[in-house]
Amino acid sequence: MAETGELERERLSHVNEAQDAVDIYDEDGLVRQDYLALIGEALESEDVEFLRHNVARLHETELGDLIEALEPGERHALVRLAGDAFDFTALTEVDEAIRLEIVEQMPNDQVAAAIGEMDSDDAVYILEDLDKEDREDILAQLPFTERVRLRRALDYPESSAGRRMQTEFVAVPPFWTVGQTIDYLRDERDLPESFSQIFVIDPTFKLLGAVDLDRILRSTRDLKIDDVMRETNHPVPAEMDQEEAAQVFEQYDLLSAAVVDENGRLVGVLTIDDVVDVIQEEAEEDLMRLGGVGDEELSDTVLSTSRSRVPWLLVNLLTAILAASVIALFDGVIEKVVALAVLMPIVAGMGGNAASQTMTVTVRALATKDLDIYNAARIIGREAGVGILNGVIFGVLIGVVAGLWFHDLSIGGIIATAMLINMLAAALGGILIPLLLDRLGIDPAVASAVFVTTVTDVTGFFSFLGLASWWYGVL
Amino acid sequence: MAETGELERERLSHVNEAQDAVDIYDEDGLVRQDYLALIGEALESEDVEFLRHNVARLHETELGDLIEALEPGERHALVRLAGDAFDFTALTEVDEAIRLEIVEQMPNDQVAAAIGEMDSDDAVYILEDLDKEDREDILAQLPFTERVRLRRALDYPESSAGRRMQTEFVAVPPFWTVGQTIDYLRDERDLPESFSQIFVIDPTFKLLGAVDLDRILRSTRDLKIDDVMRETNHPVPAEMDQEEAAQVFEQYDLLSAAVVDENGRLVGVLTIDDVVDVIQEEAEEDLMRLGGVGDEELSDTVLSTSRSRVPWLLVNLLTAILAASVIALFDGVIEKVVALAVLMPIVAGMGGNAASQTMTVTVRALATKDLDIYNAARIIGREAGVGILNGVIFGVLIGVVAGLWFHDLSIGGIIATAMLINMLAAALGGILIPLLLDRLGIDPAVASAVFVTTVTDVTGFFSFLGLASWWYGVL
Repeated sequence: MAETGELERERLSHVNEAQDAVDIYDEDGLVRQDYLALIGEALESEDVEFLRHNVARLHETELGDLIEALEPGERHALVRLAGDAFDFTALTEVDEAIRLEIVEQMPNDQVAAAIGEMDSDDAVYILEDLDKEDREDILAQLPFTERVRLRRALDYPESSAGRRMQTEFVAVPPFWTVGQTIDYLRDERDLPESFSQIFVIDPTFKLLGAVDLDRILRSTRDLKIDDVMRETNHPVPAEMDQEEAAQVFEQYDLLSAAVVDENGRLVGVLTIDDVVDVIQEEAEEDLMRLGGVGDEELSDTVLSTSRSRVPWLLVNLLTAILAASVIALFDGVIEKVVALAVLMPIVAGMGGNAASQTMTVTVRALATKDLDIYNAARIIGREAGVGILNGVIFGVLIGVVAGLWFHDLSIGGIIATAMLINMLAAALGGILIPLLLDRLGIDPAVASAVFVTTVTDVTGFFSFLGLASWWYGVL
Repeated sequence: MAETGELERERLSHVNEAQDAVDIYDEDGLVRQDYLALIGEALESEDVEFLRHNVARLHETELGDLIEALEPGERHALVRLAGDAFDFTALTEVDEAIRLEIVEQMPNDQVAAAIGEMDSDDAVYILEDLDKEDREDILAQLPFTERVRLRRALDYPESSAGRRMQTEFVAVPPFWTVGQTIDYLRDERDLPESFSQIFVIDPTFKLLGAVDLDRILRSTRDLKIDDVMRETNHPVPAEMDQEEAAQVFEQYDLLSAAVVDENGRLVGVLTIDDVVDVIQEEAEEDLMRLGGVGDEELSDTVLSTSRSRVPWLLVNLLTAILAASVIALFDGVIEKVVALAVLMPIVAGMGGNAASQTMTVTVRALATKDLDIYNAARIIGREAGVGILNGVIFGVLIGVVAGLWFHDLSIGGIIATAMLINMLAAALGGILIPLLLDRLGIDPAVASAVFVTTVTDVTGFFSFLGLASWWYGVL
């Protein structure tokens, strides 16, 4: 068995040398089982050479996925055995809990050495989650300039552009020529690992403009930077929230933007890859909030998950009790016509579903700013129209079904009318409640569902049972 | 009034000349009311100069927002009066219905002239929505090379990388030197508007590699392209779905990727700004599907909106009838203890809410590939734990409330037990159903909610009324 493993590993190493990229994923995009088994075996037999070779050739994202797929014990062994072949940037790609678990098990001087090798934005990403003591200890072991840069980024508020920016950039004075700039880039050793624009600054580091690299390459050597640069219209203040910064990127299709301090001095550069992460996080946040879950991670424990979900359930319990007390108003008619108890959840439930459709569209349209004061009236009108139309369709449908089911024409008429009323209430609630919350400065994704469900439950039970009481003369 | 308008416009033009960027947005990120009023006035008085000046200085995104904020009639007047100052790329930033409305009102030769000025990816974006006849007519009026390029892109399947790619790119042979390449870039007039890498191809256009511009700028003139290029590990096949292509970008933090045909020949380049749009669309799709709405737009009519929402409501009606028939099984005990009818929606509803929490987390984790076969068992265990814990918490709570409300200890005990059972069912249904759907190749975001609600409704009513029937001896 061990020998087959060795042979297989041998084969794999060969393949790697030939094409230097073995696909570690299966067709579902998961880390391949046989690859995991090979790594697991190598970890057990402490085959350092094999591990180092494999870890070194993986892209940071692949390495991150591998770490997540390993058992907790294996993760630590991999980091230990791979040594300096392990690219710490991979830790920015894994779940927060796993990242902390790995970093906290490592000696601080080793973390400091790894941090020193990283881009500043990745370094900040790892440092910001550590406790203060560890963070200070690690910072203290870094070279002066590195330490000052990271401290400055860490001083900006959480989730600000300053936290996400890279502090390495290329900046030149406006009076340089294109030729001088190219010569500088050829000679200078201390450049960022990659960059797509060159910033133009005055002696006090005040941002004057920027030149895209393709512009430099198209221009003749004698042209002044001043003449080829464009004034950057969209520098991002370091204090700006990352979500707002992402909107600036989307608005102007930016690939990177200068980050400036309160005096307009260049302090870093924010790149689109960081912004893509922010955009995804924001979209995810809306989805999670609509579903009644907060900021939880898959690695959270039972207790912390339960704790984070209880508040929303508690609010829902209160609204459910409110709806139940509406039913209690009509217990007389239910006692007389028990079919009402059978049918009433249909009216309330369909209203809830229709409302959730309208609410989803509204919340999303508010988030993307597609819904605004210019078209709100028209959209409210449309939703009301849809509510009436669907109310008629489903009123007739359920009316026929109920009439046949209980051999009672009048119960069919009652439920049809109640359905129409509740579908209209659902449409209006589904759009007006998020709009109102948004106006009041409350995130509509968080709070809409509770209010909207209350409206459809109460309206559903009240209209159906109320109509029935009136019809059957039990009031 | 008209004179004030003139003065105000005069003032605004002045400001523009001074800083060439007036903020057209108010603090909510909407187009400013006073700016809209000025444009509206200028449209009415056909002040061509003012309109041309204003339209020309806006970024395409700003122009798109302005178009959306205008009345339908005004939009067309703006396009007509602004003439060639109107940047057609702005149409890629507006709602599909508005885009079609504007394009279809224009003569085809005017559209062709505008298309000829655009980047190919933007041109395809506008052309692909037009009906076949108009599209062919417009293509026929374009220069030969332009036409061939656009046809090729349009031949790729909808939502493929080939549709989203830009067909303009810079490619050089591997034996050129860095110096030769720079000279070529300086002399050649027919370059893409902007680019961040140079591709390396053989005489048959087969992709050999790529060089980032910063690499060119760091290298001395005598180096061969062959020596500075990296082999692109991640070219995107033109037939690949845009969603998959977006995953490749995220996976490897790409800014742009070569698009190749089935023979590995370079046909275009896909850039991160297009990918950001895809990522947003996909996140939005998940959210909309979870909310039971399909591919609808704010500009859709009442009829088409109703039509797109009816299927989901219909499925929900069937499951609601199923749940109602469970209640009907127990009409005897409801007649005897009418409090059951009052309380039963609480049990079902709380189960539905708890399930929607679990389901949201599961669907999102499946979409981001955070949930996979390696951790599924652990996460299922965690959800079951949360279900039991929350079931105990809310069981006790509602048990006490119900017992006090109806002065009946036994009804408190019954609802507490039913709540615990249903919360556990909600947790298991909320995670197992999306997992199962995903395994079966069905999008869990679309179908989960219906099945999960059915589980919690049926379990809620059955456990609560079943327990009550047994306790009160009505079976």
